[in-house]
Amino acid sequence: MNGPPPSRPRPSRRPAPFPAAHEGVTTVTRTATETPARPTTLTPLVSPRSIAVVGASDQPARIGGRILARLKETYGGGIFPVNSSRSTVQDLEAFPDISAVPEPVDLAIVAAPGPAVPQIARDAAARGVGALLVLSAGFGEVGEEGRRAQDELVAIGSGAGMRICGPNCIGIMNLTVGLRAVFSTITGVPQETGNVGIVSQSGGFGMGMFETAQQSGLGVSYMLATGNEADVTCGEMVAHLVEQPDVQVVALFMEGVRKPGTLMAAARRAVELGKPILAVRTGRSKVGARAAASHTGALSSADDVVSAAFEAAGIIRVDGPAELVEFARVFSAGRRPRGRRLAVITSSGGAGVLMADAAESAGLEMPRPAGALEGELTSLVPSFGSIANPIDPTAQIVNDQSMLRELFTKVAGAPDYDMVVVAGAARGLGPQLRETMQAAHEATAKPFAVWAGQPDVARDLMGRGVTACHDPNLLIRAMGELARYQESRERLLQEPARPEGGVPEPDARPRPLAEHVSRRYLTEVGIPVPPERIVTGAAEAVAAAGELGGRVVMKLSADWLAHKTEHGAVRIGLSDSEAIRVAFDQLSDVAEALRPDGASAAEILVQRMAEPGLELVCGLFTDPTFGPVVTVGLGGTLVEITKDRRLGLAPVGQAEAERLVGELAGGRLVGAVRGLTREQAAGVAGVLVKLGEIVRRHPEVRELELNPLIVGPSGAVAVDALAVVAGDGPC
Amino acid sequence: MNGPPPSRPRPSRRPAPFPAAHEGVTTVTRTATETPARPTTLTPLVSPRSIAVVGASDQPARIGGRILARLKETYGGGIFPVNSSRSTVQDLEAFPDISAVPEPVDLAIVAAPGPAVPQIARDAAARGVGALLVLSAGFGEVGEEGRRAQDELVAIGSGAGMRICGPNCIGIMNLTVGLRAVFSTITGVPQETGNVGIVSQSGGFGMGMFETAQQSGLGVSYMLATGNEADVTCGEMVAHLVEQPDVQVVALFMEGVRKPGTLMAAARRAVELGKPILAVRTGRSKVGARAAASHTGALSSADDVVSAAFEAAGIIRVDGPAELVEFARVFSAGRRPRGRRLAVITSSGGAGVLMADAAESAGLEMPRPAGALEGELTSLVPSFGSIANPIDPTAQIVNDQSMLRELFTKVAGAPDYDMVVVAGAARGLGPQLRETMQAAHEATAKPFAVWAGQPDVARDLMGRGVTACHDPNLLIRAMGELARYQESRERLLQEPARPEGGVPEPDARPRPLAEHVSRRYLTEVGIPVPPERIVTGAAEAVAAAGELGGRVVMKLSADWLAHKTEHGAVRIGLSDSEAIRVAFDQLSDVAEALRPDGASAAEILVQRMAEPGLELVCGLFTDPTFGPVVTVGLGGTLVEITKDRRLGLAPVGQAEAERLVGELAGGRLVGAVRGLTREQAAGVAGVLVKLGEIVRRHPEVRELELNPLIVGPSGAVAVDALAVVAGDGPC
Repeated sequence: MNGPPPSRPRPSRRPAPFPAAHEGVTTVTRTATETPARPTTLTPLVSPRSIAVVGASDQPARIGGRILARLKETYGGGIFPVNSSRSTVQDLEAFPDISAVPEPVDLAIVAAPGPAVPQIARDAAARGVGALLVLSAGFGEVGEEGRRAQDELVAIGSGAGMRICGPNCIGIMNLTVGLRAVFSTITGVPQETGNVGIVSQSGGFGMGMFETAQQSGLGVSYMLATGNEADVTCGEMVAHLVEQPDVQVVALFMEGVRKPGTLMAAARRAVELGKPILAVRTGRSKVGARAAASHTGALSSADDVVSAAFEAAGIIRVDGPAELVEFARVFSAGRRPRGRRLAVITSSGGAGVLMADAAESAGLEMPRPAGALEGELTSLVPSFGSIANPIDPTAQIVNDQSMLRELFTKVAGAPDYDMVVVAGAARGLGPQLRETMQAAHEATAKPFAVWAGQPDVARDLMGRGVTACHDPNLLIRAMGELARYQESRERLLQEPARPEGGVPEPDARPRPLAEHVSRRYLTEVGIPVPPERIVTGAAEAVAAAGELGGRVVMKLSADWLAHKTEHGAVRIGLSDSEAIRVAFDQLSDVAEALRPDGASAAEILVQRMAEPGLELVCGLFTDPTFGPVVTVGLGGTLVEITKDRRLGLAPVGQAEAERLVGELAGGRLVGAVRGLTREQAAGVAGVLVKLGEIVRRHPEVRELELNPLIVGPSGAVAVDALAVVAGDGPC
Repeated sequence: MNGPPPSRPRPSRRPAPFPAAHEGVTTVTRTATETPARPTTLTPLVSPRSIAVVGASDQPARIGGRILARLKETYGGGIFPVNSSRSTVQDLEAFPDISAVPEPVDLAIVAAPGPAVPQIARDAAARGVGALLVLSAGFGEVGEEGRRAQDELVAIGSGAGMRICGPNCIGIMNLTVGLRAVFSTITGVPQETGNVGIVSQSGGFGMGMFETAQQSGLGVSYMLATGNEADVTCGEMVAHLVEQPDVQVVALFMEGVRKPGTLMAAARRAVELGKPILAVRTGRSKVGARAAASHTGALSSADDVVSAAFEAAGIIRVDGPAELVEFARVFSAGRRPRGRRLAVITSSGGAGVLMADAAESAGLEMPRPAGALEGELTSLVPSFGSIANPIDPTAQIVNDQSMLRELFTKVAGAPDYDMVVVAGAARGLGPQLRETMQAAHEATAKPFAVWAGQPDVARDLMGRGVTACHDPNLLIRAMGELARYQESRERLLQEPARPEGGVPEPDARPRPLAEHVSRRYLTEVGIPVPPERIVTGAAEAVAAAGELGGRVVMKLSADWLAHKTEHGAVRIGLSDSEAIRVAFDQLSDVAEALRPDGASAAEILVQRMAEPGLELVCGLFTDPTFGPVVTVGLGGTLVEITKDRRLGLAPVGQAEAERLVGELAGGRLVGAVRGLTREQAAGVAGVLVKLGEIVRRHPEVRELELNPLIVGPSGAVAVDALAVVAGDGPC
């Protein structure tokens, strides 16, 4: 775009009937207009019927000039420039302040210096403006004074029911109504609507994604930046987009979560609607977390908690912009596989092997054609090609389009495969090949995607409706995630609904409980524990051991004794009466030696020794953002070194818990020699489900560690337990 | 390019003085011409002074027509079309066969049907042609008959000292002499020389990389595809490129290694010269390995062996085309960091956090500015920016180029950092910013790179000599690899030179040895083993235990008894005389019960029990491609499940062995509580060095497992040993 097209001067532009018809602008195409199924309060912000531009200017170099010019180009609703010293701006009638605008205003875009913003907000509130988009900086991001100004802004908005986007925001775009209210340059970008919407806590990142997507032929209708999130947060924007019929995929860039409940509820709704959310969440490194905290002010969660939260919400986590755009390309095609069986068709041996490697890493299977398909392919493919998957039709891919079309049809139509990837749409192979690919794509409902390394070729294919990716590794990983998304979605729809707003207040003085007290939580929900007795004398200990049978463990239990083994407060493998008597006396001595001043005495426990088995560590802890989290990991002496654990937001259902257990040791723990049987794994998963039940019944429990949980032939037993509770917990 | 430019008819084109001046072709620029430091036998192939095109055609749609037209456009040496039925082709004098060409021919390009190739090869050999580039298919890749024809070709070539590239090869390019002998289309690609050379076992992949690199402003002078590798292998091509003064980086795509010795020697030479080799090696998955084997015919190695071989050779392994091109961009700048400290400068908070995350994953550090730099930045950067790394100069990045220039200079010049990355060269920020980046790049010798997501902006920066990458994650990973490469290079230059051609012949009937016999290999090189006695009676056993002192282990040792524990052939923790007598009798019974017909009797060993410690598994095995490999991994019951082991090509030096041990458990084993001390780790590394010494002295040893190697307070002890030897080993 080189400046606005010529337009006749007019005093102002009044709202056209909504949705408006937009003529004469070729850079914007429309596939749908927004008619929300259930209108949310963000509609005046995202799909306004009329807009005031405060700080409107004649000069295109100024933000208020640039945005006004863009609105004139493509926006069909009413446009009202606000400028205190001019009666017209860019040939439109201008108004000295918002109060003077003669028509209702849905959205006021504020491109004025920071100090002027509060008065503008008051005027807008008085005028009944629906939403304020504050581009101006100088608020929460610049220190205490700015934070106060930002709080004032929020108060003005909430008092009037006026939503505030920003401040310190690059702006928002909604191409379906021709709204391009961003202050960055967007020259040279073709702007095509499509079923992808972007929500970004970083304006630069959001616009970068928008441009990359558009340049590569992926239509994006919405780019909503959140700025400082004084009022509207990214979770609410996701919730809004998810409800739009013309949005099928949401791409999200986040640094911190201010309102996790809103985001999680939006994600749940997205799962129900089958609309994937792809998210980059940065701040996992120490330096990154520090930097993110300094400019978002959000509480920081451990990165594996964020991953667990995303998994629980069905959000697909990606690493950066390249993945985000390539995955969005694959997901936005709207097709879903029924399983993980991939067919790769290519006449490049190198590409085939590369993709086979990527498929294995992505958890996809590449079975050879079998049954009827095997025979059909044998008669189609030249003998020096290959019908083993990757399927190699040889150079006939160029010379014989009718063979190729038949090949595509057979492979995509066969029950052998759930998805098809074709490698090799090089420019030099000519447009006929791309036509054949288009026909094949249209002839199947299965996911069908092409690796096209040349951007112009990929664009051409995208224009034909064929999913085309630039990078083979990302393409295959996206297909893997597509399969995983389908499986997760089915599992998550069976999961219990998550209670909203369930994050407990942080407790200033959390208290550990003694082992035998901690164990009461376990017995209440039915987590297996070894039978035990509290004994007060050596003879009682011998009698208890006799009752319990077999070999026993003796140990101290006190709320001041968290690390028993290190303090010599555990004796294992006892059966002999004399040994038990000796142990009792020694433990009594240890108890008195360790007991802090004023603390109550330790109890001495006699516990039946668990049968030998695999040692795991299970537990739960409380994340400041997402609340209770259950964990399961490998135990044993190297637990701190191997750091192999999986996390799930509590509560978890049985299927979700089994997934967590199944992912330990790189997915090799269950079913392996010396590993867990499926039955044992289900038992461990049951413990995780019950941990979730504990925290649901007892919100005072902030931490609980079962270390170890020993999984023997008869199942899992929690032989030690350590609970940490908030101040209002039981004594 | 739309067909060749008009050229005056002439009877043939005779060689110009080499290097030739090429006029009138703007798509090829030259920065250097090839003058090999030590000429190799591939010079006639890669940098020919004259070329015959066999199968030359007037029709540009035919391969022989396309290649001839391209040579006429850009190649300055002599061009001799060979066509049996035409006297001129494309206005050049044509010859009925190679014998008829009146001048010496360095390279004959064969674009004729497969069956005609052997006679062409014979003619070429007779004419004294230096090298044959056989594009024709129908050889080793199509079955037995093709393999015979290929063998015939090799025989003709080697008889005449004529090297053969291919057959079944897409061709080669050397832009420094205007040679573009590939049959694929290369329309629309700007072709700029540069210091990157590509070697590829896949023609499609090689050309794809070439195009991607060129389109993104990365100059590539060489693209050498290897086809079937009947004669010239990829290792030899790498060796050739490494010696070219105008090549600084080699990008390699491999599926299998036919001549590992050649490749490893080339890589060693590259390390000495400081020229990095970046390699994609596919075939790590089951399906991929099967597909690769079917079309390369190379022996397949386990993927972790390939990685170990690459590490030993200083080859940087990458995942796919995107990584290859982005890494080549960073490495080809020629700058090397002195350490791992990265400064990130960006006014986009989102980009900064993303890059900080990527930096941590890549093993880079991002310290805050300290000392003098801290004060300097504080006075430069606006107060609402940030001088904590990522350094945020705010929107002044656009408004105040002199401040920015000073900021860049200070940061790059400070001793605080080893490398600098700048995020955010968006088009909209204008060309002044890019000029400032260029000035900053020129003012420092440290690695300096820019993330520029927009392809045109990245191209512009590359044109200014500034390293610019499209993807922030890949850029940071490349910087991490750059630091790692420097460290590896220094370490590898200290490593003992690897013996060439050291892969032993596979043995048809490898034989296990008894434990006490296996142990002789260990004692010979000084790997610590527990003191032990072979005993023949119970009394002798008791006496031996007394001599050894402390608790003992008793076990059977026989070449037919590989899995002792499973067969009840081990008794541990014995000290009592009666227990030792009982154990002797029981083991004698077990020995007789298990002994196969005709096998010799098992020995009974009494061994001093090792002090408790961390259990590792060490060993060596023989890879069919790369020869002996030493291994070290975590031991214990979960060893098969956690699969945590590291591999190194034998022999390894102490520093390299310490790296392997240090990488166990995600780099967390050494220095951790319950892990290894640095001293213990050095001891384990010493065992790996000695395993390498064993296989150097005793090539009959094909496998040797120390399971466990127990690392206690006094060091590492191999308490069990199992050797497998080739037929010529000791009895």
